[in-house]
Amino acid sequence: MEHDWANLDLDRAARTGDPEVVYGAGKTPEQVLALLRGLGVAHPDRAVLATRLGPQTQQLLATELPDADVDPVARTATYGPLPRPHGKVAVIAAGTSDLPVAGEASATIRAFGAGVEQIVDVGVAGLHRILGARERFADADALIVIAGMEGALPSVVGGLTGVPLVAVPTSVGYGASFGGLAALLGMLNSCAPGVVVTNIDNGFGAGVHAARIARTIGKATGR
Amino acid sequence: MEHDWANLDLDRAARTGDPEVVYGAGKTPEQVLALLRGLGVAHPDRAVLATRLGPQTQQLLATELPDADVDPVARTATYGPLPRPHGKVAVIAAGTSDLPVAGEASATIRAFGAGVEQIVDVGVAGLHRILGARERFADADALIVIAGMEGALPSVVGGLTGVPLVAVPTSVGYGASFGGLAALLGMLNSCAPGVVVTNIDNGFGAGVHAARIARTIGKATGR
Amino acid sequence: MEHDWANLDLDRAARTGDPEVVYGAGKTPEQVLALLRGLGVAHPDRAVLATRLGPQTQQLLATELPDADVDPVARTATYGPLPRPHGKVAVIAAGTSDLPVAGEASATIRAFGAGVEQIVDVGVAGLHRILGARERFADADALIVIAGMEGALPSVVGGLTGVPLVAVPTSVGYGASFGGLAALLGMLNSCAPGVVVTNIDNGFGAGVHAARIARTIGKATGR
Amino acid sequence: MEHDWANLDLDRAARTGDPEVVYGAGKTPEQVLALLRGLGVAHPDRAVLATRLGPQTQQLLATELPDADVDPVARTATYGPLPRPHGKVAVIAAGTSDLPVAGEASATIRAFGAGVEQIVDVGVAGLHRILGARERFADADALIVIAGMEGALPSVVGGLTGVPLVAVPTSVGYGASFGGLAALLGMLNSCAPGVVVTNIDNGFGAGVHAARIARTIGKATGR
Amino acid sequence: MEHDWANLDLDRAARTGDPEVVYGAGKTPEQVLALLRGLGVAHPDRAVLATRLGPQTQQLLATELPDADVDPVARTATYGPLPRPHGKVAVIAAGTSDLPVAGEASATIRAFGAGVEQIVDVGVAGLHRILGARERFADADALIVIAGMEGALPSVVGGLTGVPLVAVPTSVGYGASFGGLAALLGMLNSCAPGVVVTNIDNGFGAGVHAARIARTIGKATGR
Amino acid sequence: MEHDWANLDLDRAARTGDPEVVYGAGKTPEQVLALLRGLGVAHPDRAVLATRLGPQTQQLLATELPDADVDPVARTATYGPLPRPHGKVAVIAAGTSDLPVAGEASATIRAFGAGVEQIVDVGVAGLHRILGARERFADADALIVIAGMEGALPSVVGGLTGVPLVAVPTSVGYGASFGGLAALLGMLNSCAPGVVVTNIDNGFGAGVHAARIARTIGKATGR
Amino acid sequence: MEHDWANLDLDRAARTGDPEVVYGAGKTPEQVLALLRGLGVAHPDRAVLATRLGPQTQQLLATELPDADVDPVARTATYGPLPRPHGKVAVIAAGTSDLPVAGEASATIRAFGAGVEQIVDVGVAGLHRILGARERFADADALIVIAGMEGALPSVVGGLTGVPLVAVPTSVGYGASFGGLAALLGMLNSCAPGVVVTNIDNGFGAGVHAARIARTIGKATGR
Amino acid sequence: MEHDWANLDLDRAARTGDPEVVYGAGKTPEQVLALLRGLGVAHPDRAVLATRLGPQTQQLLATELPDADVDPVARTATYGPLPRPHGKVAVIAAGTSDLPVAGEASATIRAFGAGVEQIVDVGVAGLHRILGARERFADADALIVIAGMEGALPSVVGGLTGVPLVAVPTSVGYGASFGGLAALLGMLNSCAPGVVVTNIDNGFGAGVHAARIARTIGKATGR
Repeated sequence: MEHDWANLDLDRAARTGDPEVVYGAGKTPEQVLALLRGLGVAHPDRAVLATRLGPQTQQLLATELPDADVDPVARTATYGPLPRPHGKVAVIAAGTSDLPVAGEASATIRAFGAGVEQIVDVGVAGLHRILGARERFADADALIVIAGMEGALPSVVGGLTGVPLVAVPTSVGYGASFGGLAALLGMLNSCAPGVVVTNIDNGFGAGVHAARIARTIGKATGR
Repeated sequence: MEHDWANLDLDRAARTGDPEVVYGAGKTPEQVLALLRGLGVAHPDRAVLATRLGPQTQQLLATELPDADVDPVARTATYGPLPRPHGKVAVIAAGTSDLPVAGEASATIRAFGAGVEQIVDVGVAGLHRILGARERFADADALIVIAGMEGALPSVVGGLTGVPLVAVPTSVGYGASFGGLAALLGMLNSCAPGVVVTNIDNGFGAGVHAARIARTIGKATGR
Repeated sequence: MEHDWANLDLDRAARTGDPEVVYGAGKTPEQVLALLRGLGVAHPDRAVLATRLGPQTQQLLATELPDADVDPVARTATYGPLPRPHGKVAVIAAGTSDLPVAGEASATIRAFGAGVEQIVDVGVAGLHRILGARERFADADALIVIAGMEGALPSVVGGLTGVPLVAVPTSVGYGASFGGLAALLGMLNSCAPGVVVTNIDNGFGAGVHAARIARTIGKATGR
Repeated sequence: MEHDWANLDLDRAARTGDPEVVYGAGKTPEQVLALLRGLGVAHPDRAVLATRLGPQTQQLLATELPDADVDPVARTATYGPLPRPHGKVAVIAAGTSDLPVAGEASATIRAFGAGVEQIVDVGVAGLHRILGARERFADADALIVIAGMEGALPSVVGGLTGVPLVAVPTSVGYGASFGGLAALLGMLNSCAPGVVVTNIDNGFGAGVHAARIARTIGKATGR
Repeated sequence: MEHDWANLDLDRAARTGDPEVVYGAGKTPEQVLALLRGLGVAHPDRAVLATRLGPQTQQLLATELPDADVDPVARTATYGPLPRPHGKVAVIAAGTSDLPVAGEASATIRAFGAGVEQIVDVGVAGLHRILGARERFADADALIVIAGMEGALPSVVGGLTGVPLVAVPTSVGYGASFGGLAALLGMLNSCAPGVVVTNIDNGFGAGVHAARIARTIGKATGR
Repeated sequence: MEHDWANLDLDRAARTGDPEVVYGAGKTPEQVLALLRGLGVAHPDRAVLATRLGPQTQQLLATELPDADVDPVARTATYGPLPRPHGKVAVIAAGTSDLPVAGEASATIRAFGAGVEQIVDVGVAGLHRILGARERFADADALIVIAGMEGALPSVVGGLTGVPLVAVPTSVGYGASFGGLAALLGMLNSCAPGVVVTNIDNGFGAGVHAARIARTIGKATGR
Repeated sequence: MEHDWANLDLDRAARTGDPEVVYGAGKTPEQVLALLRGLGVAHPDRAVLATRLGPQTQQLLATELPDADVDPVARTATYGPLPRPHGKVAVIAAGTSDLPVAGEASATIRAFGAGVEQIVDVGVAGLHRILGARERFADADALIVIAGMEGALPSVVGGLTGVPLVAVPTSVGYGASFGGLAALLGMLNSCAPGVVVTNIDNGFGAGVHAARIARTIGKATGR
Repeated sequence: MEHDWANLDLDRAARTGDPEVVYGAGKTPEQVLALLRGLGVAHPDRAVLATRLGPQTQQLLATELPDADVDPVARTATYGPLPRPHGKVAVIAAGTSDLPVAGEASATIRAFGAGVEQIVDVGVAGLHRILGARERFADADALIVIAGMEGALPSVVGGLTGVPLVAVPTSVGYGASFGGLAALLGMLNSCAPGVVVTNIDNGFGAGVHAARIARTIGKATGR
């Protein structure tokens, strides 16, 4: 599908197993609508996804695509039937302000065919909270750990379990957090082995990576 | 096991499935020897690993632990019987100078119980090289893509396949590469969905993450 | 031509072959109008150009200089007869959000006397798109390759052809793109030989450089 | 005491309660010797301190000031009788490579009149280590928490206790640790309330701050 | 107390001696109200604190919690009876624009149980001002020194007294102050021994640290 | 003069020869008015200055201090009789957008007692402009050279004359100008000997430095 | 040609018109020798090039490939018959210390089939030098302008001529030149239209770009 | 005078009043010798200067130009008769480690025809030292204030006097001093009016600027 302003990659599902996703930032509401509708037509049997939707785009989608599922906290829209989930991803967020990123990750995981367990406000300054949630994430097939400020939570979780773990730094913080740079650097230097990292606030990328792991394991083990 | 200068985490295998690993940078040859030997005693049934070993440490290990497998390019030592590999990780390196990082990743993957396929010098300036290697990585359970300079290879590979992909920036480059910063930023901003990233030159971390994915899938699918 | 707030370089066409261009950022609509009109008077036989025009300036020019050609996407205005084009520049943009920069480059190329072929939304995550467009840029005299995020497209294009190539990083992205810094560093470190780079979002500079190459070759070869 | 190359601040003890300290970096062994001897003459009743001593300076001091106590790990020298310690500072270091900074802090604390409890290799990737050491630091009057890499330990310790806590980032790490910058930013953004921070590797500064707290409390409570 | 968007750490007072504090940035007025009320219920005998309150949150608290003490300059709210103050913290601010940070520090100190002496506009370009205020801070149990721009004041104060000193850089400045980075780096590199530093504009963190010192000393010495 | 929010340094003229100046950024219009009036009362015989005045402050001053001279481009106000000028400072600005900084410098120079010659839009891309203005600045006692973007003008001017030269980088530019950082670094690295630099956009600081030079020379030589 | 450590892109000449070039940094002398020899065998009719050669590699090449032309200042080796030059590139270097970069550019231009005119030590602090050399570069088909420190020379040259211009920042400088960053940023922000930039010290990349322009124009115009 | 590797600007004294100076960094001892000798021949009546001389260059000059005055601390050589000094520059250095920069400034001032008063080790942590030296710099015609670490000394001195002041940041420090960046930023943001700044460690540039001021005033006032 080719507009003079866009060139949808309709072959992507064949190459990578999943359709292209509409990244809403910097697009007009009308562009997002046209692209999401086009993806829906090309993939009638499974949900397609749009992320980073501003309020006006959310409103237009709610009006024009009433079947779409718009999430105002995650700023996402899902259009079409969700795949049956296989496997489980635990999405763990250090603080209340990290919820939009956790929501983006969760919406992505569901659209990419895995199940989600969301755990919120378990920052390291009150260790009993993450230790108390341990059984909720110990049996997951993949973990996403989201934190702003100093970004220490992935190191703590990564020392408690061997489940593959993706860390997502967020722009939550001020001053010398430099828009999430402090959390990003902290996670890249984690002393827990095997921690991998996404761009700041990139719940979507973490969701794609984790869902691919979880659904493969889930399918292989019949979950 | 506790020295007055170290405090080995012998419980780690119980918590995370794998023993602690000796990070050799900043330790004397004697310290590395003592720690690797101690880990070997505590885990007699499976290989333990040491990374970032300088020439003197490599020499001491070769003399004092003749059973250890020392790799001078990867700067690693493996001590004890390797686990039977499950699943497969493809380790893809853009250039010749990225070989030490690829070697560190491969040694780690083997010590953590997965199989390795290594593909070298397939940078994006000669696309036919990576396109020609496509069948060698298409059936892997996880990918590690290593590149210095502009770090573009993970974006290209990530558009060709849906296998979970870890990108490793290297410090190969000069001037405005700023010691690997350019490659790191490039990978964090990849337009291919699901690309996750490690610290600069961190072949070990990528190996741990990818091996955990591959061996779980491999075991579940009987490979 | 000298105002107390400006000092137009009317000698520039004699020295460099092309008139001065009005850079609209930080100037009032009235200042831009006066300068563009002044340049038009001094160069009645060929188009003069203004760039980085805000909505109010565009409106004022449309009203006061109805002969001017105002492009709201490129945020440019061309005033006076375009030179006959010699040679061809291919302007290649990775994504939809890079269109304003591509438009600025194209308007500049035309005002500086070369032809333009514009190719959009051919990012590296779907390689078939750029490979499929290969014949549209293989016969160009110069290439401009525009990308935000990780800025990988110039490396891929630069490995496919020996046509002189200018890379333009854009500020499209978020988080660790740091306003285009990631793309800028990526392009500066390109492993494809001969890639040269402009400032972030500087479609104008790339257009000037490429047009000068293309028109010289075009004239010499009678195109 | 005034040389033509130095101007010792002999009034400092009167103003601040403690003599000036010789910072050895960038000084010749002979200069350090002259300054330490001069401080010793001016303060015969209490220990004076020199820090950041290279091997040659350590050797010269051992020869020329045989009464001085030279610590090769901490790279410090103490000259004269240590004050009777009041109060207690717990010095907690995340890893083996942080020992020189811990040693500098400990030597400073002793020279400034407080007691020291040193706890080593209790990084957050093995939480049981720091949790198991809790009673060793819970009754301290001040804490110094030292870590490189992501610098997460102060956040964890700061959530376990209300004792005043100084965090010291170290240059231990590689790649995106940028010489300790990652740990520094992490500690500055700690989510644990009341964490304050020193320069990278500045065990001395942390020691001065903590000793002043501990000795005042210790004296007031008769310890 | 657990919401689906928050998980108050009601155990914190038991662990650290003080209740959790509501950080208002990035929370809705309703969330802040609910959290502050919840903390008040859990700690009826002592003041609880909220910081970084926007105008709308301040208004809602003034309406819904009329007993709360809202400070529009410090952007804080205190709810419940203040503890009896022990010891004294001197809060010293270099310039008029640093007042909000000084106010946040002072509100925190009072809520954490220590007394406050506030000294304002005593920057180093007019040394007589800080020298003239010397007796107002010489008998304090802890100092907080706040400055933007080059952040030189802590070095000057730290050379005049041995009282434990926390430096707070502020975002006051322009150009190469880079949002407070210049002051932060200046304070981290202070040549006065024992200066410790907080994040930019973090009056709260400095207040917690200093109040803990002052109240312990104050209680021990019966002040 | 001491408010509870400010502490005017009325002794400054005695120490340094010139009264304090009101820096308007971050102050309310009422605060600026009170301070400027207070300075005027303390220094009735000579002009006092306020800089960085927003539109509302300018309006309030125009109403309440009708004798004050408010300059909306320079964003300054001068209140009281200007000193008789001695010596001459040439203020040279590379582009039209640098005019506010040039205006701030010029207003400062006049208030500090020297004469001004202002030269505008003489950037290095049209060398004849600065070469043609050479005689207007060759006899000055001090030079201020203002430029944004790459900040090359001071190097060119500094190679043409031995008059003491202060370079002022401005925030004019985009992308990799990083808010004036490029110009600042360029000027600090100037290959012309003796170029000294101020903060970005700091016309005031350059004006003070240059006026002090010019008026001393002017007085000594009877100009 | 494929080693287990390298994978020469022998198809590159077919795709881009020129053979691959051996980048010597980070390769052993033996590796460089093998690669250069391999390229020579594959391209017997035209020169192949190696860059960034250390002293040991230069020595080995001189011994083993006596026909190769090794340049110790440029740190390059050319092997095989140089193509007949078409067109002319002027290589202009601001200072003596920029000579190695100028040499690398010149060697590259010759190997890529264009002629070279080299002009040295014409920095902007003595404008008459570059103005006096004007006729030596006015008739070139492309310009390469090399400078360290503030990197102002490309802006001056770019204002004098309309010939396509590539700017090369060098790492010459100290302090706030930050290894060439100041010059890089200066050139990216040049106020002269059409200036494009390479990585720091990248004479090779500039040479490729410029030679491609010059030889095409030269061939078309029969020079 | 023109070598094929250099192009001395012998016209500079005519344009700017002083001959070119040899910057020794990155030049061979033989090159420095040839250039200094050449400058001496061209300017037989007054001293010429070379800076940043390594030990080998110093030795060669001592042997080959026995009349030259080589200063090993300042790393400078002066060749030819010093001009009669006019006026006085006070060179004030915060610490012992700043002596090489102070020496470079002083040698430059003398070669440029002004007198020097050098004041050392008067850092702000012991304010009485700089206050006690006040009369030694109060009557100077220009001040140079040199400091590393936090670079606070210029703000303190700049508040004590109205003499034109140049601040020189040095690379003295560690960790977050980032090679002098902290001091540089501190000085650029000085709250003392009229402070201007040079590159890190640039005693030469400060010396040129200050000497030009002092000698002009000195000549005008007959000193």
